[in-house]
Amino acid sequence: MSTSSEPNDLEEGLEFKPKFDAAGLVTCVATDAATSEVLMVAHMNQEALRRTIASGEAWYYSRSRQALWRKGETSGHVQRVVEIRVDCDQDAVWIRVEPSGAACHTGRRSCFYRKVEAGEGAVRLSLVDAERLFDPKAVYQK
Amino acid sequence: MSTSSEPNDLEEGLEFKPKFDAAGLVTCVATDAATSEVLMVAHMNQEALRRTIASGEAWYYSRSRQALWRKGETSGHVQRVVEIRVDCDQDAVWIRVEPSGAACHTGRRSCFYRKVEAGEGAVRLSLVDAERLFDPKAVYQK
Repeated sequence: MSTSSEPNDLEEGLEFKPKFDAAGLVTCVATDAATSEVLMVAHMNQEALRRTIASGEAWYYSRSRQALWRKGETSGHVQRVVEIRVDCDQDAVWIRVEPSGAACHTGRRSCFYRKVEAGEGAVRLSLVDAERLFDPKAVYQK
Repeated sequence: MSTSSEPNDLEEGLEFKPKFDAAGLVTCVATDAATSEVLMVAHMNQEALRRTIASGEAWYYSRSRQALWRKGETSGHVQRVVEIRVDCDQDAVWIRVEPSGAACHTGRRSCFYRKVEAGEGAVRLSLVDAERLFDPKAVYQK
């Protein structure tokens, strides 16, 4: 039997073996379970992933703050997890969530509120679905 | 005027200033423009992003092969780009694509063909939307 005919466990197996990078993280994409809109791209370490699975609410790891982070702990805008999927090489997860409010710290429903416009000359951005659900200054005041 | 009332250019401006990480990459999420399904998570360096914008077809950067990679160059399954969005801190892009065939090198439409199942005891995976559109052995034969 050639090794090429062996199933690739990581890709074809049913064992969950998330492949954390050198910083101990996997990439996580969160989409709205109802609208399928991409809400945010963030990272999870092993503990964030464990808590997300155990609690059914999204936990992330903030690279800038170097801290575990329960989504919505400040804003109240938690994400209830409907489904968790993992990709072929198990270094990215996709969570389908029911968001209660905005995903973005700027107050928007999604972090992806700007579109890349390739016209004549320079590439520019334009706003799309950019209305705010809350005022970040009021929510994240110190 | 306090600095806190100044608009944050990276987040609120309309200038496209992708924030590449230490390895020169941004994260890219590709979704199917018709079904909204998440197809894959990959990376783009500056050149992959430039070519994607210029050509209207998805280019990525393969970290494992350390090479620029036109999606579909081997399989023929190119991705026509319908829209490109960028997130609040400009370190992730979301592309909505019209895929011609499979996104995943395993032959599936999406790389996310396994669901994480948290039952009693160990966390396991189960297959979902896992039918193959092509036989990877036939397409990627050497």
